[in-house]
Amino acid sequence: MSDTSPPAPLRLGIAGLGTVGIGVVKIIQAHTDLLSARAGRPVVITAISARDRQKNRDADLSAYAWVDQATELATRDDVDVVVELVGGENGIAKETIELALDNGKDVVTANKALLAVHGQALAERAEANGRLIRFEAAVAGGIPVIKTITESLAGNRIRRVMGVMNGTCNYILTRMQSAGLPYETVFEEARSLGYLEADPTLDVGGIDASHKLAILATLAFGTRVAFDGVEIEGIERVSIDDINRAADMGYRIKLLGVAQMTGRGLEQRMSPCLVPCDSPLGQLEGGTNMVVIEGDAVGQIVLRGAGAGEGPTASAVMSDIIEIARGVRMPVFGQPATTLGSPQPARTAVPAAYYLRLTLADKPGALAKVASVLGDAGISIDRMRQYGHHAGEAPVLIVTHKTTPEAIDHAMQVLPKTGVITGDPVELRIEEV
Amino acid sequence: MSDTSPPAPLRLGIAGLGTVGIGVVKIIQAHTDLLSARAGRPVVITAISARDRQKNRDADLSAYAWVDQATELATRDDVDVVVELVGGENGIAKETIELALDNGKDVVTANKALLAVHGQALAERAEANGRLIRFEAAVAGGIPVIKTITESLAGNRIRRVMGVMNGTCNYILTRMQSAGLPYETVFEEARSLGYLEADPTLDVGGIDASHKLAILATLAFGTRVAFDGVEIEGIERVSIDDINRAADMGYRIKLLGVAQMTGRGLEQRMSPCLVPCDSPLGQLEGGTNMVVIEGDAVGQIVLRGAGAGEGPTASAVMSDIIEIARGVRMPVFGQPATTLGSPQPARTAVPAAYYLRLTLADKPGALAKVASVLGDAGISIDRMRQYGHHAGEAPVLIVTHKTTPEAIDHAMQVLPKTGVITGDPVELRIEEV
Repeated sequence: MSDTSPPAPLRLGIAGLGTVGIGVVKIIQAHTDLLSARAGRPVVITAISARDRQKNRDADLSAYAWVDQATELATRDDVDVVVELVGGENGIAKETIELALDNGKDVVTANKALLAVHGQALAERAEANGRLIRFEAAVAGGIPVIKTITESLAGNRIRRVMGVMNGTCNYILTRMQSAGLPYETVFEEARSLGYLEADPTLDVGGIDASHKLAILATLAFGTRVAFDGVEIEGIERVSIDDINRAADMGYRIKLLGVAQMTGRGLEQRMSPCLVPCDSPLGQLEGGTNMVVIEGDAVGQIVLRGAGAGEGPTASAVMSDIIEIARGVRMPVFGQPATTLGSPQPARTAVPAAYYLRLTLADKPGALAKVASVLGDAGISIDRMRQYGHHAGEAPVLIVTHKTTPEAIDHAMQVLPKTGVITGDPVELRIEEV
Repeated sequence: MSDTSPPAPLRLGIAGLGTVGIGVVKIIQAHTDLLSARAGRPVVITAISARDRQKNRDADLSAYAWVDQATELATRDDVDVVVELVGGENGIAKETIELALDNGKDVVTANKALLAVHGQALAERAEANGRLIRFEAAVAGGIPVIKTITESLAGNRIRRVMGVMNGTCNYILTRMQSAGLPYETVFEEARSLGYLEADPTLDVGGIDASHKLAILATLAFGTRVAFDGVEIEGIERVSIDDINRAADMGYRIKLLGVAQMTGRGLEQRMSPCLVPCDSPLGQLEGGTNMVVIEGDAVGQIVLRGAGAGEGPTASAVMSDIIEIARGVRMPVFGQPATTLGSPQPARTAVPAAYYLRLTLADKPGALAKVASVLGDAGISIDRMRQYGHHAGEAPVLIVTHKTTPEAIDHAMQVLPKTGVITGDPVELRIEEV
């Protein structure tokens, strides 16, 4: 701070000029002086790369050197930081980052898939080279969740991290509820609005959100990224019936990711869950994201904001760039990659209340039979609601007291064999938030 | 990161062993290995100081050197960082910090009053000495709002910062509503529970929250701390009547701080405001704090958590300590203090809807007269509700369309002169959130 020579600019090479890449360019062009004041030195773009040079983009790129291959950015003398916004867990993104690290460049990326799958190897490579990889934009868009866990809550033993981290899924679920439309209809709507990834399974199958959850678990618990350890269930099977019935009982259905360290190991799950409709998570509408972090000292911290989009994601990328410009240097995952523990993956065993929906056949003693199956499995009923018979069938909703996932799984296997219910019973976990 | 010599510990001298100080001691004792892994070096306490050495404290302090005067911590060779948790805008806290900076120590503090009043001089002193002052704990307890504005949103031009940042006031207001009790009763309850500062005006008069708001405005807008520029109104005049009537109209009353930069200058206000009851701010219960930050790229970010208490505040102090241990060095207010602008203080001029409550005398044409006064002031009515006459008086609630504070002030002066209302009319701003 007392240095009197004019500070050297931080020079960026940007790989990928999609929505986020152009967002970063726009911020740097619009806020030149602001960024320079905050970063303590100018932040400049020197070179850019994208698949199609001719594509019409909403920004003047004429001042930047164009390279056809993103990997070329990694070897240029006039680039200090490679900003990887290409995406994809392999291919050009991974090659470019590896080359950048080996050539003494720091890296900023928004690539959750890459980090979820190759994060450990990349972090070790960065640290062996004395380089940084920063990735605030990889999880929950503009919400500063990486920094909050790694820095702001560094004095805490983290107990649990959870969140709604895929805006498309939350859009689909809230739209189903507000419009009373079935999943398939809203899915097609979302597709036509361009909300879905090219492979929509990444969104609705819960994979994208699970990539993010695995990254957060690494930061929270000091363990290697274990995307393979996430129990994943997407939203494809969430029915408008369940959304409506859950609402009757005071709940909303959310695609919720939860990571917590237990005595048995690291539980990571991504699944449709019920949350109270008056909780912060329950009130989350549309594409907004929310992350909840619980630490032993701080208690519960809730962060909410836009989880995607040009501005919010570019804002997160810029925060990483400015940190590098300021000279902040830190291990990739908050502590040296070689010191991260190897988590014992554990299937969900933390007890919870469950929501059950089943359809009773119109037979005497049907409800008594259901109750006795639950009782035999050690499950006690908190609230039950039976609706009127229609065409010989009666929907029944049950909210259980806290019970184990094993007990629920067992009951779910036994119930169809009783002959008193029709169709498959539905069970959804009620997450305590 | 590639250094192979064992890293030197970061040595702390802690001034003040109240709730927060003891909280810091407990975290350091409980999480020795965790902190060392995350900070990259051991974090140790070497010396401590408090007013009363004999006081029974809930921690083993025998390993630390005791000094009777906090200022002695500032000159010890075995202290790298002075952690000031004494409090107060002058006196020992200020002396200790100044001495620490002059003696080459970094400083971590939770002292909002000190920073709100002397922040500029202290920041300049720190930077002239190449030293740090960090103060995450000074605003909103465990919520990482300092870091979020200064670092995570550094790529944004901030448009507005607002928040509920005094848990005691929020406790009083929510308790009044839930129990239907008048202000005076709940105030006494809060006092007997130990929720109030020794001088309760700091809480209920809005001063403590205004200290925090002025600090956030500095970070958000790159301007010198201007606590004097905050328009402050406390919660003393909030009546249970208004809480109930506002609820009827779909609102909650919160002591809300708002800072925004306008063409006319920097608006900073701390006052009881109405917010929609289904908004994140409207749903904030009890002692929880919430800060909302709006940036041009990121949109709206909402942060929620415990605003006070041993664990949350100590968590924030620890985040600052760990940042220093990691070698992160940054200007006190995010950019060099000498480059901070001098804000033009502006009285609130941003238009808003307003809630008005007045009591009509039982006279023909009374309501028409009120409506014409508002119309003459250029105020149009969005919603109006008149309750039945009781003892010759009828309460009237009005929610206006957006109008200027000047127009409202004018109407408030004219209305009592009409002879058709009894008592003083009440006006409360409805903040858009």
